[in-house]
Parts: sequence; C-alpha cells; structure tokens
Amino acid sequence: MRYEFKEDKEVYGDLIFESKFWKLFLAPSQKCLGTSVLVLKREAVNLRELTSQEWDEFGLIVKDIEVTMNKSFNPDLYNWACFKNAAYRDESGEVKAQIHWHIHPRYRDPVIFEGVEFIDPNFGYPPSLGEKTIPDELREKIIGHVRVNFDGR
Amino acid sequence: MRYEFKEDKEVYGDLIFESKFWKLFLAPSQKCLGTSVLVLKREAVNLRELTSQEWDEFGLIVKDIEVTMNKSFNPDLYNWACFKNAAYRDESGEVKAQIHWHIHPRYRDPVIFEGVEFIDPNFGYPPSLGEKTIPDELREKIIGHVRVNFDGR
Repeated sequence: MRYEFKEDKEVYGDLIFESKFWKLFLAPSQKCLGTSVLVLKREAVNLRELTSQEWDEFGLIVKDIEVTMNKSFNPDLYNWACFKNAAYRDESGEVKAQIHWHIHPRYRDPVIFEGVEFIDPNFGYPPSLGEKTIPDELREKIIGHVRVNFDGR
Repeated sequence: MRYEFKEDKEVYGDLIFESKFWKLFLAPSQKCLGTSVLVLKREAVNLRELTSQEWDEFGLIVKDIEVTMNKSFNPDLYNWACFKNAAYRDESGEVKAQIHWHIHPRYRDPVIFEGVEFIDPNFGYPPSLGEKTIPDELREKIIGHVRVNFDGR
C-alpha cells in the first residue's frame, strides 16, 4: 500500500490513496494537521489541460477529502491551491511543473492527535510556509486514521 | 455591463464577465497584472458543496481564463487558490465565507501594459500579499483588453 517511487515521496509525501486520475499524499510538512497534496497521475503542466473526466473525478475527490478530513480532525475550513511556483524558482529547467493541489486544513484552535498538539500558526491568513516535520510513526498513524475515515465516509 | 452591487465591487473588484454559475472580477490589487477573482453566484461556503454542473462549468472557465490571459498578457504560469481565510480572520461572524477562486497570473519578467510596468515581486513563490492599486482608467483598459480576447478566444 505504501507508494514506492522515491522521487514522489520526497516531493509530495506518503501516499494515502489513489483514484483513476489522481493520487493523494500526506504532505512532508504537517504544520496544519492533515496537510495533503493531490497529484494528477499523468504529466500535465496547466489546469487548462485537464479533461472533463479529470475535472469530474476531481470534484468528487474534493468532497471525499473534505468529508474525510472533517471526520478525522474537524478543521474549520480548507485552503485549496494549485500553484506550481517551485518549478519556476530557478531557471535550470530541471524541475518540470506538474499539476498538483495543496490541501491545507485550517484550525482556529489547537488540535491534539495521538497526544501531539498541532497549532495552525497563521489561521485567518495564507498557510505558513515554514516546515514542520513529525516522526514517521506519527505520519503512519495519521495516514491510517485518514484511510479508515475515507473508507467509512 | 459594469457590475452594480457595491459590496461585491469592494470585495472582489470589477466584473469582467459572468457565466451561468460564476462571475469573474478584476481584483482590486493588480500587483500581478490580470489578477482576478472567480466567484460562485449562489451562496456556498465549502468546495464540497459544488454541484457537478458547477464543477463542469468551472473546468471550462479555467480553460477560457488561461487562454484569454495568455493572449492578453502572456504570463509564465497561473496560481489558482480557493482560501476564504479573510472570513475567518475575526470572530465577529459578520463576514460570511463564500466560494471564490483567486487567479494570479505570474510573470518571470516585467510586463508593460499601456505604458505601465508591472513587476511580479515574488515570482517562484506564493503571491505577495501587498496591495497595488492602479487608476480606474487603467483598470477599464485592462478589462476591455481581456474582454476582447475573451470574446475572440
């Protein structure tokens, strides 16, 4: 079940689930508990390239993710963003832009999961850019918790 | 053709066009030339509430906007975001969250429109939060230019 491609793991995090057209990863940084990345499974740079089938499934997945995250962590709202700025950060051309969505669950109050407190440092404003790494075992527990709620949604 | 509701003008900017389910506004701040806001025409807070018809039209409009902005200003990429953080910024509950998308065309190099230079101050990173207001006449010219290219897309 664990996603095997190292390059994806380094960039997007750990696989939570995949659908026909999309893969959902638990993001490397967990400043906001449950922060995830939804990546298109074929190469495409700009949102205008998405097919109607890919949009259809995206709409269904948005609902699935918000319902699942509500059950898992009960955030106050969600920030959704398709930016791809990092691929344009240097001019080497080595990083190819790829359609992916950042999903930031946002929390007015601290939230505790498995005894660990997560504080959204910038609630009411765009997501903080700082990194927050957590132990692998805690990541596994978050993924397990989300998967159970995803299957039971 | 000018959108008449003052409250929308203050929050989202000036209407460029409207479709069955969505309205596109030229955003109040033009730090990135062509920055726009796409607002759902009915009240809804979270993306999970969108119907498949609203998603379908959104997918078509994403393509229309990127094609039109490419013809109008030729940016290097687009940042799309549905955040709604401002509605959660204070706890008065006076501002109701409403589904809207921020569209930030991003530019590696300065771009000149009607003799005015626009510099994207944060290319390769999330859009700068600073405000850049420009004269109303220049806003009208931007809107006219976008509309011509939208109609001719």
